[in-house]
Amino acid sequence: MEVCQVLHMNGGRGEQSYAQNSSLQRKVISMTKPIAKEAMTNLYRNTFPASLAIADLGCSSGPNTLYAVSELVKAVDEVRRKLGLQSPEYQVLLNDLPGNDFNAIFKSLVGFHEDMRKQMGEGSGPCFFAGVPGSFYGRLFRRKSLNFVYSSCGVMWLSQVPEGLEDNKGSICMVGKSPPSVVKAYYRQFQMDFSLFLKCRSEELVAGGRMVLNIYSRKSEDPSSKEFSYMWDLLSVALNEMVVEGIIEEEKSDSFNIPVYTPSPLEVESIVEKEGSFTIDLLDVSQLNWNAYDDEVHQSEAFKDGGCNAAKILRAAAEPMLVSHFGESIIDEVFSRLGEIVNRKSEEKTEIVIVTVSMTRKG
Amino acid sequence: MEVCQVLHMNGGRGEQSYAQNSSLQRKVISMTKPIAKEAMTNLYRNTFPASLAIADLGCSSGPNTLYAVSELVKAVDEVRRKLGLQSPEYQVLLNDLPGNDFNAIFKSLVGFHEDMRKQMGEGSGPCFFAGVPGSFYGRLFRRKSLNFVYSSCGVMWLSQVPEGLEDNKGSICMVGKSPPSVVKAYYRQFQMDFSLFLKCRSEELVAGGRMVLNIYSRKSEDPSSKEFSYMWDLLSVALNEMVVEGIIEEEKSDSFNIPVYTPSPLEVESIVEKEGSFTIDLLDVSQLNWNAYDDEVHQSEAFKDGGCNAAKILRAAAEPMLVSHFGESIIDEVFSRLGEIVNRKSEEKTEIVIVTVSMTRKG
Repeated sequence: MEVCQVLHMNGGRGEQSYAQNSSLQRKVISMTKPIAKEAMTNLYRNTFPASLAIADLGCSSGPNTLYAVSELVKAVDEVRRKLGLQSPEYQVLLNDLPGNDFNAIFKSLVGFHEDMRKQMGEGSGPCFFAGVPGSFYGRLFRRKSLNFVYSSCGVMWLSQVPEGLEDNKGSICMVGKSPPSVVKAYYRQFQMDFSLFLKCRSEELVAGGRMVLNIYSRKSEDPSSKEFSYMWDLLSVALNEMVVEGIIEEEKSDSFNIPVYTPSPLEVESIVEKEGSFTIDLLDVSQLNWNAYDDEVHQSEAFKDGGCNAAKILRAAAEPMLVSHFGESIIDEVFSRLGEIVNRKSEEKTEIVIVTVSMTRKG
Repeated sequence: MEVCQVLHMNGGRGEQSYAQNSSLQRKVISMTKPIAKEAMTNLYRNTFPASLAIADLGCSSGPNTLYAVSELVKAVDEVRRKLGLQSPEYQVLLNDLPGNDFNAIFKSLVGFHEDMRKQMGEGSGPCFFAGVPGSFYGRLFRRKSLNFVYSSCGVMWLSQVPEGLEDNKGSICMVGKSPPSVVKAYYRQFQMDFSLFLKCRSEELVAGGRMVLNIYSRKSEDPSSKEFSYMWDLLSVALNEMVVEGIIEEEKSDSFNIPVYTPSPLEVESIVEKEGSFTIDLLDVSQLNWNAYDDEVHQSEAFKDGGCNAAKILRAAAEPMLVSHFGESIIDEVFSRLGEIVNRKSEEKTEIVIVTVSMTRKG
């Protein structure tokens, strides 16, 4: 599986689209936005740049795409108004893999500009947008061309399915019962990928530039602890049921693994320190429920069914990968089973842990 | 008609797509590329920048999208190799209106990078791509952020259908028989739009930055002379036939006008001089036939029918505008008639005139 080719959120605006099923990711942005806004206003107050280049890495396509960026722009605008300064020009760089629905984002920009003008009034901006396709595990921008990098719920995705997962039978990711070789393979891949991510960004950011990342994390230092992998594990259960019933071949299921790793806060901290380009200004841990929803987002009736809701959130993110491996035909069945399994286990409370790390590029 | 919303080339890869029907526009790029390459290598030799930001305005989606840009990058690479210098980093900014198929461009970039690596070898680049949605009759980029601007066959499109075309009955653009009020309205719109285009680019380019534009033009100083408007005029003939036959309402047809103007070389020169931000380094006039094709592009059997070919080229560019005004149902009929009309008039040789203007941003 070429992760770069098949990893993208479900496009469009339909029932299974990421645009319709990203309330969880929105909640993460919303919960952690004071940290991002503080980093941004500190950056602005320190240098009062005439122009600000802000990159959102793994921006996806939907109501969340412009949410974080608009909060960052508004935060700067508030400060510059208070100080009676002229607005900087903003360059907003929206990055995701080439399979992301950039056309949908671009078509939504006219409305976005109007909303921003209404909220901030005249005299703010201008705000220039660009879409930047490519993997963030590689350089995306010119040397020293960025002031601020933001990424929410993106860095858990690895650049590839780790090698050496032959013993990971019956699971599609790292879980409680995973053998040590599997745990090691996943961690090694994350360590390599995240170090490369930091190195690339350090080349692209100006000295003193800021970066704020939200990463799905875990409370336990044990990499195979339940928490985030809980839902993926239930997806394994659904697939395994279908193997037993002869709907999916066992071999096909055994060879499917998800390129996801959720580091502990300590792992994040130690990789940043080892890579050496950034100073950590703040490292914060927060948590929310898989059924979290944000009051700002309209919730349809369907979302009142918790299992269905959780299954939809996972489907919007994982469907292209599953289709690429298993084909289209089993998809509805897999996620309908997942919904039922989640409901059966409704007494098990699972929380999602987020580590937010705010950093400054060393001078 | 909101030009920004409805003006875009036909997307996708199908029979009527711009991707399959852009041999004429490719020929224009190919014919004039020595001028663009010279401007680029002069820019490079004068300053040896560590990074080069190149914008292609009105890049469309298809085989032409990356053609000009790749020639410009290769031209720089040849010079820097001869001089034994390290490669600059390239930032390629691909602009078109938000309706353009950016997703298709982004998906083609992996192959493009591989081709470039094969052609230029290791040690060249890196080359970073971004898609920039928006009208070039407004600012698109930050102040002084560009080194080179290129645009081919884009600047003829006006920002809006000019006001005051009430007397332009029976035609969809400016033609030989157009009344003076119509000619004046079209010219005034072009003058405003092109001046604004120059002003915006002058803000975005660094001092000494270069710009090369290919603009559909005409030999005669008479704005309503045949030449480029020839094919549009035949499209009027097709629509008028359908009015006579009761397929299209006369009022509907009378209220349809195409936002296109083809300036004379002298008009281009005088507007550039009047606007004042650029020095003209070279102004060149070239011509080609409506049935031009480029040996580099695979020509399908269908293209051997000249009328059909010309109709397809026009359809790929004009269909979204026609659909927006007349609806989907008449489109096949309109262009099938256009093909027949072109064939009936095959003895009339019509040439397309291109003015290429190479400019430097004043210091």
